[in-house]
Amino acid sequence: MAVYTEVSDEELTTFIESYDLGQLLSFKGIAEGVENTNYFIHTDIGTYILTLYEKRVNEEDLPFFLDLMTFMAENGINCPLPVEDKKGKALRTLSGRPAALITFLEGIWIRRPKTEHCEALGEVLAKFHIAGQKFQGRLTNSLTLQDWRPLYEKFEHQADDVKHGLQKLISNELDFLEKNWPQDLPKGIIHGDLFPDNVFFIGKEVSGLIDFYFSCHDILCYDLAICLNAWCFEQDISFNITKARALLKSYNKIRTIEEHELKALPIIARGASLRFLLTRVYDWLNTCENALVSRKDPEEYIRKLRFHQSVTNIQDYGFDIS
Amino acid sequence: MAVYTEVSDEELTTFIESYDLGQLLSFKGIAEGVENTNYFIHTDIGTYILTLYEKRVNEEDLPFFLDLMTFMAENGINCPLPVEDKKGKALRTLSGRPAALITFLEGIWIRRPKTEHCEALGEVLAKFHIAGQKFQGRLTNSLTLQDWRPLYEKFEHQADDVKHGLQKLISNELDFLEKNWPQDLPKGIIHGDLFPDNVFFIGKEVSGLIDFYFSCHDILCYDLAICLNAWCFEQDISFNITKARALLKSYNKIRTIEEHELKALPIIARGASLRFLLTRVYDWLNTCENALVSRKDPEEYIRKLRFHQSVTNIQDYGFDIS
Repeated sequence: MAVYTEVSDEELTTFIESYDLGQLLSFKGIAEGVENTNYFIHTDIGTYILTLYEKRVNEEDLPFFLDLMTFMAENGINCPLPVEDKKGKALRTLSGRPAALITFLEGIWIRRPKTEHCEALGEVLAKFHIAGQKFQGRLTNSLTLQDWRPLYEKFEHQADDVKHGLQKLISNELDFLEKNWPQDLPKGIIHGDLFPDNVFFIGKEVSGLIDFYFSCHDILCYDLAICLNAWCFEQDISFNITKARALLKSYNKIRTIEEHELKALPIIARGASLRFLLTRVYDWLNTCENALVSRKDPEEYIRKLRFHQSVTNIQDYGFDIS
Repeated sequence: MAVYTEVSDEELTTFIESYDLGQLLSFKGIAEGVENTNYFIHTDIGTYILTLYEKRVNEEDLPFFLDLMTFMAENGINCPLPVEDKKGKALRTLSGRPAALITFLEGIWIRRPKTEHCEALGEVLAKFHIAGQKFQGRLTNSLTLQDWRPLYEKFEHQADDVKHGLQKLISNELDFLEKNWPQDLPKGIIHGDLFPDNVFFIGKEVSGLIDFYFSCHDILCYDLAICLNAWCFEQDISFNITKARALLKSYNKIRTIEEHELKALPIIARGASLRFLLTRVYDWLNTCENALVSRKDPEEYIRKLRFHQSVTNIQDYGFDIS
């Protein structure tokens, strides 16, 4: 939780005047969002979120993310809609930061997803993937196979300080994935970060998806693997096969999972586990204990990786190919 | 900025169901508020702030604060209105903390108040004091003259670590104030913490006052002194006599400042400076550098205290008795 960039009332009043949104009525910094600074904004016209993009986001990629949000909002996927200023620009600058105003999306994220939430997630993820097929923008994944080893090399010598044996675990896994990563799976626009805090619900219905800032063009079932990891493990990191089945089945109803995608799922899930393990270990080593951002224990993704390493049969995910 | 107490979606959904406010649509932690945890809440019916009271607030005093907010809202002072649940209770418990849901007040607080804002402030403060005369609740000030020395004694031996000479400054000032603190000034309900972040504006108009958690029964012009300190000094801690005149004149139009109040203003302002100096030094010494709460430099109130010590004539505040 953090507001990294403070905006003054005068700056913001002037900023809001450059939109057709009436008068600024109130704004409050939001204590959520690990990567960027977010303000909740009320004007005469409505409710918005103002995001100031902090250093971790590549400024050149922002038009892709904003275009994708606009495209998805116009193609049946509920998500925040970037608002254009009077000159037709959605990407702006405020307090020295790239900034965008987006519509406020109602909904609550589920701290402990149940099977019904996983089922709803599968449906919206499949719809997202199908809608994405018509999106013209392209952005390659900057955190995929070829990026993992360079990231690992930044902390290789410290890995065993985090946990004994971690260096060997990651090193072996990288060797394995580099040799075996599938090349022929269906690709498209993926969300790339569909953790529970990025999926809003009202009651049992998904009200929308947020935070498209890891979206890119990559293997579609990599998104499924991220969701298996983020939604289908219990607090004690035991895998809940009922939740996984609900996720995969409801996804499959909207977009049929091809047989070779299913067969590749364990290795893709190993890759998805390693990707979050790597960034968590890196952040763990590079975030001071008292920082505004809470550090996430890398242990969680060590255990998820080990689970997927142990999977020998796709039925371990609760999904029947037949 | 801080969310000290995390509330889960399930807890909050259940909590909101105990009110007549329809369904919970969204909630976000607010990165403001030094003392308590605040959530922004949307329901079918409207927009609210949920406050979880953290340790610094005395739980026994909460009914006074909530009653005062209700009273003021009903007596012409715009402020958040505590919302009662289905059983008629405004003070509740959530996540192990005392909690209250209050209406959301539109408006923006002014980072750098201008003379026109000080003028608007004087008017609303006088109206607050007049309205308070009819309020039946009573709470003594827990941070006034007799409380200052015990607070000082908690850090007396460390005072000179904060700034050389601080021990002598505070000690001498306490001796002086204990001998000379006026006993016969008009009393009533004061806000007690009317800094710019507690006064909301829409355009040039005050839209309301918030944060009544230092309100109590005390000397009325002590509030004026707090405002002189918080609104009428520039960034470089030079006193802006034009702003002070605007504040005092507009206050005086609504509630006449009695001659003995005016004469006492310098000593009351010394007391108001010492009160904030003491809490800031205490917090400075007891807050770790990386804490969620930003520490406020005690130097500011050392210089404000010295200014008031130098005042020999009420006209130094820009206000003409005649």
